[in-house]
Amino acid sequence: MITIEDFANVELKTGRVLEAQRVEKAKKLIVLKVDTGEERQIVAGIGKAYAPEELIGKTIVVVTNMQPAKLMGVESHGMLLAASDDEGNLSIITPEREIKQGSKVN
Amino acid sequence: MITIEDFANVELKTGRVLEAQRVEKAKKLIVLKVDTGEERQIVAGIGKAYAPEELIGKTIVVVTNMQPAKLMGVESHGMLLAASDDEGNLSIITPEREIKQGSKVN
Repeated sequence: MITIEDFANVELKTGRVLEAQRVEKAKKLIVLKVDTGEERQIVAGIGKAYAPEELIGKTIVVVTNMQPAKLMGVESHGMLLAASDDEGNLSIITPEREIKQGSKVN
Repeated sequence: MITIEDFANVELKTGRVLEAQRVEKAKKLIVLKVDTGEERQIVAGIGKAYAPEELIGKTIVVVTNMQPAKLMGVESHGMLLAASDDEGNLSIITPEREIKQGSKVN
């Protein structure tokens, strides 16, 4: 169990996908340029479920205060949220209504 | 900044809204019965942006391992995620594609 204070340490924001392309030699990985109020690059393991081009222009939800990491040599400054079930389906998470990029999610 | 391990402590799941009604004397609060793989009751502060009836049947994202809390005397076993901007707009967060309730979000 976590407290509301624990959860408040996680910074979640909406982000608009500006660019997306596959990471070389990594079928599962897509590198995204995202506007979450500021531009950032993130790497997401959604390449089996999504083609890069269908992500462009979409609004996603990003953990924006995650420690930077390198995936297959590519820097990631945040984590995209996606839902996945035990049958291998995967879906990005998106606001139901139009809302500004960089909006806080909580 | 948080680590991937910090974030892994937060359990997020998709949930299907089964029932929704306003909390008496609390204009902002809606009490929801949600199927996140198991049925649970949560209270969400989205009553200014959403009517209860428009939530029924929708898939939302819920923090499922939040310590239970009481809001205006009503028990809440989880937290609904919503995006809000500085102009007072609010939107629930939902999977872009059809996916089973109780799917893990990460």
